[in-house]
Order: sequence, then structure tokens, then C-alpha cells
Amino acid sequence: MAAAAGRCVCRLPLVTRAVRRPPVTSRGVIRPLGAAAAVTDRHRPPVGLSPLSGGGPGRRYSVQAAGQPAPLHQVVKAVNNRTSGCVDLVWNFGSVTPFPYVWLRDSCLCPDCFHPTTLSRSLRIDQLQVDIEPQSVQNDGAAQQLVVTWPDGHVSRYPHQWLRERSFAKRDVNARRKQLDGPKTVLWDRATMDRHLLRVDYDRLVGGDLATLHDALHHLIVYGLVLVRKAPTDFGAVEEIGETLGHVRPTHYGKTFRVASKVDANNLAYTANELAPHMDLTYYEYMPGVQMLHCISQHIGDGGESIFSDSFHVAEVIRARRPDLFHLLATVPFEFADIGEEAESRSRCRFHKIHERTMFCMDEDGNITQVATNNPVRSYRLNVPLELVKPMYEGLRMFNDLCRHPDNQLTFKMDNGDVAVFNNRRVTHGRLGFTVTEDSQRTLEGGYVDWDDIMCRYRIVTDLLRERP
Amino acid sequence: MAAAAGRCVCRLPLVTRAVRRPPVTSRGVIRPLGAAAAVTDRHRPPVGLSPLSGGGPGRRYSVQAAGQPAPLHQVVKAVNNRTSGCVDLVWNFGSVTPFPYVWLRDSCLCPDCFHPTTLSRSLRIDQLQVDIEPQSVQNDGAAQQLVVTWPDGHVSRYPHQWLRERSFAKRDVNARRKQLDGPKTVLWDRATMDRHLLRVDYDRLVGGDLATLHDALHHLIVYGLVLVRKAPTDFGAVEEIGETLGHVRPTHYGKTFRVASKVDANNLAYTANELAPHMDLTYYEYMPGVQMLHCISQHIGDGGESIFSDSFHVAEVIRARRPDLFHLLATVPFEFADIGEEAESRSRCRFHKIHERTMFCMDEDGNITQVATNNPVRSYRLNVPLELVKPMYEGLRMFNDLCRHPDNQLTFKMDNGDVAVFNNRRVTHGRLGFTVTEDSQRTLEGGYVDWDDIMCRYRIVTDLLRERP
Repeated sequence: MAAAAGRCVCRLPLVTRAVRRPPVTSRGVIRPLGAAAAVTDRHRPPVGLSPLSGGGPGRRYSVQAAGQPAPLHQVVKAVNNRTSGCVDLVWNFGSVTPFPYVWLRDSCLCPDCFHPTTLSRSLRIDQLQVDIEPQSVQNDGAAQQLVVTWPDGHVSRYPHQWLRERSFAKRDVNARRKQLDGPKTVLWDRATMDRHLLRVDYDRLVGGDLATLHDALHHLIVYGLVLVRKAPTDFGAVEEIGETLGHVRPTHYGKTFRVASKVDANNLAYTANELAPHMDLTYYEYMPGVQMLHCISQHIGDGGESIFSDSFHVAEVIRARRPDLFHLLATVPFEFADIGEEAESRSRCRFHKIHERTMFCMDEDGNITQVATNNPVRSYRLNVPLELVKPMYEGLRMFNDLCRHPDNQLTFKMDNGDVAVFNNRRVTHGRLGFTVTEDSQRTLEGGYVDWDDIMCRYRIVTDLLRERP
Repeated sequence: MAAAAGRCVCRLPLVTRAVRRPPVTSRGVIRPLGAAAAVTDRHRPPVGLSPLSGGGPGRRYSVQAAGQPAPLHQVVKAVNNRTSGCVDLVWNFGSVTPFPYVWLRDSCLCPDCFHPTTLSRSLRIDQLQVDIEPQSVQNDGAAQQLVVTWPDGHVSRYPHQWLRERSFAKRDVNARRKQLDGPKTVLWDRATMDRHLLRVDYDRLVGGDLATLHDALHHLIVYGLVLVRKAPTDFGAVEEIGETLGHVRPTHYGKTFRVASKVDANNLAYTANELAPHMDLTYYEYMPGVQMLHCISQHIGDGGESIFSDSFHVAEVIRARRPDLFHLLATVPFEFADIGEEAESRSRCRFHKIHERTMFCMDEDGNITQVATNNPVRSYRLNVPLELVKPMYEGLRMFNDLCRHPDNQLTFKMDNGDVAVFNNRRVTHGRLGFTVTEDSQRTLEGGYVDWDDIMCRYRIVTDLLRERP
């Protein structure tokens, strides 16, 4: 059941166009590729190039693109504009796009400047003259390439289409930056999520069904919540799902964690309390990106329902109704702490995590990018000026009340075999209270995956689906 | 040699005062502790309480502190100040510190509000009335406690010393926030690092010698570079060190990665180029915090020296000399990308990572917190306005030249068995070029650890050393 240690269980088909890239350029050592490392796509035409593929040109096509189907954009004239320090390209559709000399020299695609097997830039910055000017500039219409000759005789050739996709026109720059973010987030209240909650079968998800995997990743990015159904009611499913969506991220609680509410010899009258909406591990500077919670054995009887809400939506409501509190929660931090010892069989470590963070994080445009709250591990040390103490609690209370509001809160009881997968930096989770009896045991397994790996997997699956015959 | 999968090999002594804390409050499920989970320190006096311990009070001492040696700070009078909405405490040293009502109610330490076995706040925000006022306030001098009775009859007791350490006085708030950062960073040039480079023996470090571990962690925090010596010249040492300093963080290259420059059947004339100063994995939103590079087999002959420099120091030089370039590099992003397939035996995954980031990151006070640069994986897509292109290259060039300057760059050739451990968000690493011959093979193993876990381990080791008899 459990994936082998250290092995990625991702079952993505390895199509022939995939290139093998050794762990090289970012690792400090260059290693030649062996005979097995055939690069199979270096002569593909530049059509269909994903605008996300910001890497080296050799990854998707070679500079020998001539003879292939004509691309959309062609340069009809190249002007060496010494006044602006740019080569101005005039395109077949009439627009003019300038390319600065230094960028052109830095972006030379010849085998001396772009390493042919490691597929990344080998020209070093200390080899780059920032004030460089071309000796000559020529448009090779037949080859659909710009040809630049430099003062030392070095010649650089750039495919038209490749240049077009790197234009410095404001509209193009903005479009590229937008695409880096991936699919656009859709905020939700309960009614929206009632309509849009995606349920996928475990076997299809981890079994390599690309459409299912794509849907799950897409919904996770857009809505932040997906329900996986019919998982085996045993430990291990979380790791399988984690390695399908990305890579399981260990914490001081281990690679995955097991939680159970049950009658304990020392604690017969124990009550499993209601748990208010929260995010996990807010005392990590790097909060886990996505959480998986697998219901292995649900509580029998009343209570124990899971609750979820979209904190981004809630934050926007606060911004609209109480901009003063929104500003406070976006600028003044709470402290979170977790101190103790993890003595589970798989690891035995003391831990002492502390981190101070604002509840809301925003990007430079004011979009909310992260929300963090967790009442039980919120520290009793509140390191803020006295006059902000009461407003901070007003903010906490307003946030909590909005998350719990029936218009916002999604409530359902997970079945055995259900796995809730949710954005731990956006979607609050919690649980309604219940009473533990002799007859009921509630057992879950949880784990985390980070967004770097999820976005990575999403791009790959999107490409694979696009390339399907 | 290699640590067992999923098992923390940390050999920290488990002293009796350690409390066992189940993975509970941050995980969404409350689980009672079993009989083995004795909390052994709940009756320790509040003396010696680390100001970093921002967690629940039960972690270090109980509210039954009476009868223990007298603490430093005592309340001589408690005044219920309804005008300010605070309880004003008058201390034996004459100062007055106000504590807001709502904070006091939120911070009640009774077993109903502070969960006695999970050791965290069980009072929920929806149970907290933000406008609450005490019915009565009393100073219990004998018990050294403030006693507050609330309108519903609920009684809260707070040890004087515990309150003192949570004072809202500006000086105290600032001091606490400062301590969260840990030891202060010391910027370095080559001469400074020549004097301060810490060399520790592998066996002492991973063998549980607390003083060695403390020194290594402290230097890693302060200077960002430590050299571990006499490691076994075989794979596995990186994982041992990683689990000693924190937890090994996997990436799409696996849990650790192996790099080798050697004569390859397909590439006899291969030259291992100079590698300019860089950080690893700049295309991850969450760049690894610390890197370990273990020299298993060094190149025989000229070249192959490792180079390191302190990018924080370099950034400060740029800020002083060229504030315009500093501002640019701190506000306008570069794009980084890594696209390919990891086909090493231990994992087989396609990857497609892209991230856009500024070279310099700062905190709200303008202190540099992170630097990221990596020329080979810097994308050819430069998503900036045309007029910023040339200045961006000026910045890259100035940064690189300063890193490479003999006054700044530390250069040494690692011996077999050396492991360089360095802050991957601060210390640039690189390598001088060399020529591969039939006689020489250069083999390294690398891996990463994140700062959350390193700071965590540092706090624990510091506590353990302090508690030594």
C-alpha cells in the first residue's frame, strides 16, 4: 500500500518527447549525459510552444526550425537602433518590438552559450559585457531567424517565434506574468461549493487517469478543496495521493500523521470538542501548502461533521465591511508556537517551533495570497501595542464568525474512505463536536504536499493532455 | 549508514522534563494521551522560563507555583481600570503594566480554557466576548497570582511572573519580537570568514555531542557556513547530517542528489566549467533553506576549488554604492525555470518548475532576508519594462563581480570527507573550472534542510545545554 521510501509513485506516462535533464545547473556540478539521455524533441517546430515554458530553447525546439510549418509571427525587417540600444523587429502584422542588445547577447542560443546537454545557460554573467553593441544585424527571412554578429565575431541566431514570445511590449510582459500564476482562483461561499465540490475516485486518481488528475489539480488550484472517494480504509492512502499530486512533505510529526479519538484507559469521560476553523502548522514559517485528511474510520453517532470555508472569500468580506480590521490583520502579527515531543513509533524528536505572522498576506496588487489562523496554538504572547489588542480580537472574532456562518461554511460528514484534500493556506478546516463512546472510534491519517510540487505536476499533466493524439 | 526511512535519527537526549505532545491541536482532532504520556514538569517553578517559550503555560510550569523560590517580579497591587478596559498591575519595582480584559479572558489558564493534556488553548474564539469586563479583580500576594472573576462566575488565575513575560509595554514587546529572530546575523568578507569558519568533526556532530551541534547550528545561523570534516567518503553522510540539523527536505531530484563529473563514454573531451556564485533551486517558490554538499571524491589536479561568498554583505555594498540598482533588484523580479525529467534510480518524475522572484528580499525594516540568483536557470523570458532591462543586467553584473572579488570570496578545495553546510538563501556557492581526465573522478552528494527545522533544533539544543547540571 505505502509507496516505497524515496520513490516517486507518480504514474505519469513518460512520453518520448520528454527530455532527461540531469541535476546539474542548479547543483554546482556539470555532468555529461550518458548514452541513454537522448534528447528526442530538439527538432520539433516551435508551434504550440507553451508560454509557460520559460526555460531554455532546446527544451522544446531547436534553432533549426526552417522547413517546418510556417509560424504565426515573422519578422519582415530588423533595424539596428543605436540610439535606443535595441534591435527593433518589424513584424508581418505591423507591430515593432525592440530587443535590448545586452539581452540579445545574454540570450545567445549557440552551443557555447547555451549548454546543449544540460539545457541551460552556460554563458556566465562575468562573460557578459553590459554595454555591448552588435557589429551587424541581419534578418534571415528564409530561416525565420534574426542573426546578430558581435564585435568579437561571435554570431547569434534567434528564431522569430522564440523572440516574439519574449517581447518586451508591456501587454506581452503582463500576459506572461499573469500566466505564471496558473488558473484564476474562484472565491466561494457554501452555495457555490455545493455546486462545484469535485469528487474523484481514488483508484482513478492514483491509477494514472490523466483527466481525473488534471481535474483534481485544477479544482485544488481554483477552489482549494477536492474530495477523494473510495480510498482503502487503511493507512497509506494519504502517501499514495500525496505522491500523485506532488511529493509528500514531512514535518516534525513525521511523513504522515495519524489521529484518533477513542476511549482511553485514563480518560473514559473524554469529550472530543468542536474544533473551530483553522489552518495547520501556523508555527512553521513555511506552512504546508495542501493538506490531505483521510477518514479511515468515522465516528458512529451524532456529531463529527467536517467543516470547511474559503478564508479568501471571508477576508474579502472583512475588507469590504471593516477595512480597518482588514488592514490590522494584514499588518500586525500573531505568534504561534508548538513545543513538545513526537514519540510516535516512526519518529522520536523534540520540537520547538515558533513563528510570528499576520493572518492575511497579500501580493503587491493587494490580492490575498495566504491566510493563517489556529486558535489552540496561537501564543499567549501577543506582541502588539496595547491599543491594538482589542481590535485584534475583534478581527479574530469577525473572521471566525464569518467562517462559521451558514452562508459560508460547508458541512458534511466524511464517509470511511473519504479523503479531503484542501489548500492549507486558504481553506479553513474544523470539526463539529461529538461524544466518544465505547462503540465508536474515529481514526484519520493526514499528510501534506507543497504548492511548488502541485503546480509543477499541474503543468506537466496539462501538457500531456494537450499533446494527446 | 543511511538513516532508516521516515525515522528521525536525532540523538538528542530525552530528558525527563520533556513533555509529550500529541499531534492534536493543529491537526483537527483531539486525542487523549495514554498512560505513558506523563507530564513531568507541570509543577516546576516559573524561574528560568525561556522568553522564547511562547506556548501554553503548562509546558513549563503549572499555575500552582506557590511555595517555590520567589520569582523576580511580583505584583503589589492590581487595579481594575474600567476607563482603559485594562487591569493595571503595579509591580514591586514600581512599574505599572496594563493587561486588556479581553486578552486576560482569552488567556485563562484553567483546565476548561487551557486543555490539560494537549497543552494548548481550548477556549474557542466564538466563546470569547470581546467586550467582556471582569466582575472583580484581586491580587493574591501569597500565591503570587492575579485572580479575575468574570460576570458568569468563571475564575481565572495568572502567575505574576507569567504575566510579566507577556507585558504589553513597548520595550517588552520589542524585546520579545527581537528574540524570535534568534542570534543576530554577522555579515562577512573573506578576511572575516578566514577567522570564523567553523570546522566540526562529523562523528561529534552526528554522534550526539550537544556542544558541537550547538556550535554548528549557531554558526549556520550567524555566518551561514560551516564545514563538517572527516565524514565517511560514501553516500549517506548527507542524510545523517540533515537529520541531525533538522529534517532532510526532498525535492524533485529526490531526498538527496548525487553529482559526478567524470569521463563519459559519449563525452571524452568534456570540460567541467567554472560555476559562478549561485543559489540552488531558485525556481522553487520555497527555496531550500540550507544546503549540504559532501565531497566524496575530489578532483585530482588543478582546479575544482569551491567558492563561497556572503550575498547579504554584497547586497549591503550595492545598497551603499548603487542604491538605484539595489532598489531595482529588490523590487523587479527575474524568472527561473527547470523543466525535464529526473530519471535517477530512486525517483522517476517529470518536472516543470517556474518561479519569478526578486534577487533581494527584505523585511519591513529593510533588513535583507533572502538573496536568490542562479544564472544557468535564469529564464530567457525577462518580464520587465524595456527601460529596466539594461539596469537589471548592471545589477546582475555588479552582484556577481562583488561575490567574486578576492576581498569577498572564500576559496578552498574540499577534501574527501568534507561537507560544506551553508545557508542556501544567503551564501552563494560555486566552483572553479577544471579539466576531467581519465585519472580523476569528482563525486559529491547533496541535500537540503529547511530553516523551520534548523531553528527548532537550535532552540532545543540551547535549552538542553542550559539545563545541564
